[in-house]
Amino acid sequence: MTPFSHIGLFTKPNDTRVDKTLHQLHEFLIQRGLHVHCDRNAGIILGLPTMPTDVLAQHIDLAIVVGGDGTLLGAGRLLADHEVPIIGINLGRLGFLVDISPDEALTQLEEILNGQYKEEPRFVLHADVIREDAIIGSGDALNDVVLHVRNEVRMIEFTTRVDGHFVNTQRADGLVITTPTGSTAYALSSGGPIMHPSLQAIALVPICPHTLSDRPLVINNQSLIEVQLCEDRDIPARLSFDGQNNIELESGDLLRIHTRPEKVRLLHPQSYDYFHILREKLHWGVQL
Amino acid sequence: MTPFSHIGLFTKPNDTRVDKTLHQLHEFLIQRGLHVHCDRNAGIILGLPTMPTDVLAQHIDLAIVVGGDGTLLGAGRLLADHEVPIIGINLGRLGFLVDISPDEALTQLEEILNGQYKEEPRFVLHADVIREDAIIGSGDALNDVVLHVRNEVRMIEFTTRVDGHFVNTQRADGLVITTPTGSTAYALSSGGPIMHPSLQAIALVPICPHTLSDRPLVINNQSLIEVQLCEDRDIPARLSFDGQNNIELESGDLLRIHTRPEKVRLLHPQSYDYFHILREKLHWGVQL
Amino acid sequence: MTPFSHIGLFTKPNDTRVDKTLHQLHEFLIQRGLHVHCDRNAGIILGLPTMPTDVLAQHIDLAIVVGGDGTLLGAGRLLADHEVPIIGINLGRLGFLVDISPDEALTQLEEILNGQYKEEPRFVLHADVIREDAIIGSGDALNDVVLHVRNEVRMIEFTTRVDGHFVNTQRADGLVITTPTGSTAYALSSGGPIMHPSLQAIALVPICPHTLSDRPLVINNQSLIEVQLCEDRDIPARLSFDGQNNIELESGDLLRIHTRPEKVRLLHPQSYDYFHILREKLHWGVQL
Amino acid sequence: MTPFSHIGLFTKPNDTRVDKTLHQLHEFLIQRGLHVHCDRNAGIILGLPTMPTDVLAQHIDLAIVVGGDGTLLGAGRLLADHEVPIIGINLGRLGFLVDISPDEALTQLEEILNGQYKEEPRFVLHADVIREDAIIGSGDALNDVVLHVRNEVRMIEFTTRVDGHFVNTQRADGLVITTPTGSTAYALSSGGPIMHPSLQAIALVPICPHTLSDRPLVINNQSLIEVQLCEDRDIPARLSFDGQNNIELESGDLLRIHTRPEKVRLLHPQSYDYFHILREKLHWGVQL
Repeated sequence: MTPFSHIGLFTKPNDTRVDKTLHQLHEFLIQRGLHVHCDRNAGIILGLPTMPTDVLAQHIDLAIVVGGDGTLLGAGRLLADHEVPIIGINLGRLGFLVDISPDEALTQLEEILNGQYKEEPRFVLHADVIREDAIIGSGDALNDVVLHVRNEVRMIEFTTRVDGHFVNTQRADGLVITTPTGSTAYALSSGGPIMHPSLQAIALVPICPHTLSDRPLVINNQSLIEVQLCEDRDIPARLSFDGQNNIELESGDLLRIHTRPEKVRLLHPQSYDYFHILREKLHWGVQL
Repeated sequence: MTPFSHIGLFTKPNDTRVDKTLHQLHEFLIQRGLHVHCDRNAGIILGLPTMPTDVLAQHIDLAIVVGGDGTLLGAGRLLADHEVPIIGINLGRLGFLVDISPDEALTQLEEILNGQYKEEPRFVLHADVIREDAIIGSGDALNDVVLHVRNEVRMIEFTTRVDGHFVNTQRADGLVITTPTGSTAYALSSGGPIMHPSLQAIALVPICPHTLSDRPLVINNQSLIEVQLCEDRDIPARLSFDGQNNIELESGDLLRIHTRPEKVRLLHPQSYDYFHILREKLHWGVQL
Repeated sequence: MTPFSHIGLFTKPNDTRVDKTLHQLHEFLIQRGLHVHCDRNAGIILGLPTMPTDVLAQHIDLAIVVGGDGTLLGAGRLLADHEVPIIGINLGRLGFLVDISPDEALTQLEEILNGQYKEEPRFVLHADVIREDAIIGSGDALNDVVLHVRNEVRMIEFTTRVDGHFVNTQRADGLVITTPTGSTAYALSSGGPIMHPSLQAIALVPICPHTLSDRPLVINNQSLIEVQLCEDRDIPARLSFDGQNNIELESGDLLRIHTRPEKVRLLHPQSYDYFHILREKLHWGVQL
Repeated sequence: MTPFSHIGLFTKPNDTRVDKTLHQLHEFLIQRGLHVHCDRNAGIILGLPTMPTDVLAQHIDLAIVVGGDGTLLGAGRLLADHEVPIIGINLGRLGFLVDISPDEALTQLEEILNGQYKEEPRFVLHADVIREDAIIGSGDALNDVVLHVRNEVRMIEFTTRVDGHFVNTQRADGLVITTPTGSTAYALSSGGPIMHPSLQAIALVPICPHTLSDRPLVINNQSLIEVQLCEDRDIPARLSFDGQNNIELESGDLLRIHTRPEKVRLLHPQSYDYFHILREKLHWGVQL
């Protein structure tokens, strides 16, 4: 009946708000005769055996994430290799990605398990850091890859190329390379535009640029983006992936960023409405 | 040899800087045995017969526009029906669209006539204005369709829908619906992002919005955009197409905006570099 | 006992929400033995004789405005000559200026009539429009003097001088010359900063400037500001005062703007807190 | 004749562009019978005895700084105690503070030494860092005091109070507390307004704030500003003074910031024009 048989549960550590929802979920799934697998955090809460996420990814055909957007970002990056579909349940506060509220979780899950859902693919960025012709670090991001000054309140200087074409050299606190998914996160605070999730585009959003005409630039997501820290300005910098997994950078380091072929597959209830979430999160139309 | 045989010349009225370039162009084309046709403005300067632009469009397989970006926008809107390729020659000041300088015009034209060029399609927006179920006005825009308050220093209120989905109701001076081509024009002054010309996207950029979280929204250019002036706020408004051809609006009027199937086909010399023009126009990397 | 004996009531036309509050107010004031005078709108609602506002201003030592911020702005401009203190009562929705809610109006008014209040002076701008050495129009503004393009979706060009010093020539949709009082109104939508009401400063905020480095400029409020529409760009423009009382401008027209010596004197309950209003109106700290 | 007799020379280390200007300056001053004293950097270049800056400050009645704006900021902070007047000579590139070019240095210095100058006072911020009721660090800034996240690409959370009044609690990368002098530096990149140097105001400019309505706030410079890092969000932060002299902060730390009574006294040639520098530095009116 249901297209799914092996369900993986993912959650965040040290958050007591998760417990009740997770227990309800587990019972609900078991009663439907589904196989339930747990990541480390869910396993601790439920008292069940756990698997490392990458192993888990190979055993499941549906992932349910309970937590905030950050929890889903983490699971999403790890599940992208196997393109396992993902459902996000929040902890009472609507997220851009965890769009199902605990109150409605079981009803909406029932629908989805019955094959009534909207599937929304979200693309993922991959970045390599190259130093003296060798890759010294790599990472994936569903929201954004962020280049940022480190350990100083000074600007870094970097050169950007798109598909081999020189764009500019700019001084700024950093640069957000964002997907549509990340366009409502850090990039928005840096002055970037909102991009609809269906858009196959990447925005390059400078953070506090020295030159006021260094504005956000939106390009095709099939472009190869190269960002190089200028040699003659020796300011330490850092690369982060969805705000996690920092790589420390030196002047001269080169970033190569492209879209991964695999997608993160978000599943939503039929009633899902991106603009509704946007209105809620950005307080559009609220008048005090 | 050359893929082109009938060349149309387009220029702007009342600009003496045009004369020399136009005469040189005409001589150059005649010497190559090409047929030259003139729009009204070019005909007056060259003392040659002229045709209305829409007739001209059917007789030519290449258009050469001499003037500023505005001149090319005007020709481009009219030539879009027939997808006649267009070359833009400026009057000494680089434009985003008129990228060939008078000094290099003949050399670069030679190249292009020999089939050595880059072709760059730019999409065009079409907007209908609907009042009481009837279309009361329409227009095309290569840069932007702009909704703007008229005759008052007060905000208008309007509701936006994308592909039938309600986005928001906002108060603002207006809304810029811009192509990538127009993203470096008025939309940039209103806080919109720069969009690469190859991007199949439209940005909706509010002008001085009352709600500070009403930020630019970038969507797929295959979307149907509907903007309706709220009934209960009776502020006169106006619609313009590339800053021209105004339509006066009343409260309750509905705008329906979509991408036309036909493209404007810009031809550039092989050395054309979009980012170079961007750097020049936005003073990137200039230090005083 | 009370420092006030003659109270003027001011309200807005055609708003039925006003009636109940106004009747309660009137009864409350009469019971305290105070003399009550009405502007035209209040007189119609209360069925009492009315006076033109400028005459009213000479007969009262306290003004009570019932309405929105716009109603108080209108009364404030007219009362500034006589520096009559003003209390603002809103219609259920907190305003920046009409800070007393109808529910609490009588209690808080009692306090104020007993001399328990905070007085907050707000300065007022005066602008003259000069054409061929003659003043062709003038006006006062408590919020802002706004120069704006008229009848076109095109930029105007104007030159700004401060105390005789040339600042710049810029192209933009217009320029907001704002007091701290107006800094949370139209100027904020145009990208201006919030200025504390106690600040003796004026901000010049360009509206959609063509040059991205044309940023808001904050100067001393004792400065003489001159803005002149460039002769060689013949775009019609308009000047407005608090969004009212438009003056039509021609190219070459010169605006001379300075702070009036007289203040608008706002009276608030002791519990008045400017930052509280700011937080409410700008949704600071609200999380959805 | 000249109001100055003991001149202090200040410069930056490791910059060969300084040498020629410094030698010319020294010869010029000696020939006029003036006493010349050197800071460490100037002494090394000129081969003369040096003094620590704080001792130097007590022996001189005029300081000449050769370098960039950063060099003058450093000297200015140290000389503020004694209110020694300062002249800034740049290294060929106009600065906001070092406004005299090497070419014109001797001519303009002659004028100034003859008492022909404009004096411009600039106020200085002082900040104390308080942890568990004890001051654990302090500093002065002529440009800005900057609170910034440290070692993470995450937002810090902090509460701001002005003169004891709660303003807001916000999440952001940081907060720039800037003087008018600093308003054209980092604060401008963060979206702050330009403030005229004569303005007695401080701007609080959030850096990439999470809430889009958290806009720059301009207040009187006699206000006491308190910023406290929220206890329950344990993100490391840092305080810097004019981009220097970092203090590492912990959650719960309280910053207390006020204007110092002493001023930095800048001396300029009679031809000094603040708006001219602004136009040059911000490329106002340049058209490509």
